[in-house]
Amino acid sequence: MAINLYDSAYALETAIRQSDEYRKLQEAYHAVTADPEAKQMFDQFRQIQLNLQQKQMMGQDISEQEVQQAQATVGMVQQNAKISQLMQAEQRMSMIISELNQVIMKPLEELYKQI
Amino acid sequence: MAINLYDSAYALETAIRQSDEYRKLQEAYHAVTADPEAKQMFDQFRQIQLNLQQKQMMGQDISEQEVQQAQATVGMVQQNAKISQLMQAEQRMSMIISELNQVIMKPLEELYKQI
Ligand SMILES: [Ca+2]
Ligand SMILES: [Ca+2]
Repeated sequence: MAINLYDSAYALETAIRQSDEYRKLQEAYHAVTADPEAKQMFDQFRQIQLNLQQKQMMGQDISEQEVQQAQATVGMVQQNAKISQLMQAEQRMSMIISELNQVIMKPLEELYKQI
Repeated sequence: MAINLYDSAYALETAIRQSDEYRKLQEAYHAVTADPEAKQMFDQFRQIQLNLQQKQMMGQDISEQEVQQAQATVGMVQQNAKISQLMQAEQRMSMIISELNQVIMKPLEELYKQI
């Protein structure tokens, strides 16, 4: 890979690291990690999400009961202020990552449109 | 989103556009597009790939016959020099994109490791 490509990628990595959105995400993560109750709730939530995602990817059926359990956990988790802030910070960060990806992928997108 | 993030993303986009790998990919695409026989073969190949991917994503079964049809098309397509060069150029580009993504995603990866 050309030096210039690496340089540009590292410059973007630094810009992400220094962005307000990343700093807020870091703070929100640390707030959850420092609070054992929030941490345990959050881990449980992530585990349920992961299980559902894996089932979906493998084309397995998701039961009514599993959907209800997931919804109940989301409801519980959103009532915790620290987790709720973390989830908002994650959403903002993932919107930014997706905007950055749209910019970066433009050259390839242009090619695919032609063919 | 902060100006600096956009600037860095656009700088990386330009670096991709000016890279040898992207220029080679462009050339390979245009060589295929300019050759009706190669173009038709390539479109057919892409369509088969797309169908299989969609079936996989939706958890549908892929029949023995479909696997054989896909393999036969890959074999046929690889014997066309223009398509074979295009597929190689695509592979190199997608390796680079994945390396770039690893660099850019490092800040987030670090966070996820902590929690
Ligand atoms: Ca295409
Ligand atoms: Ca995590």
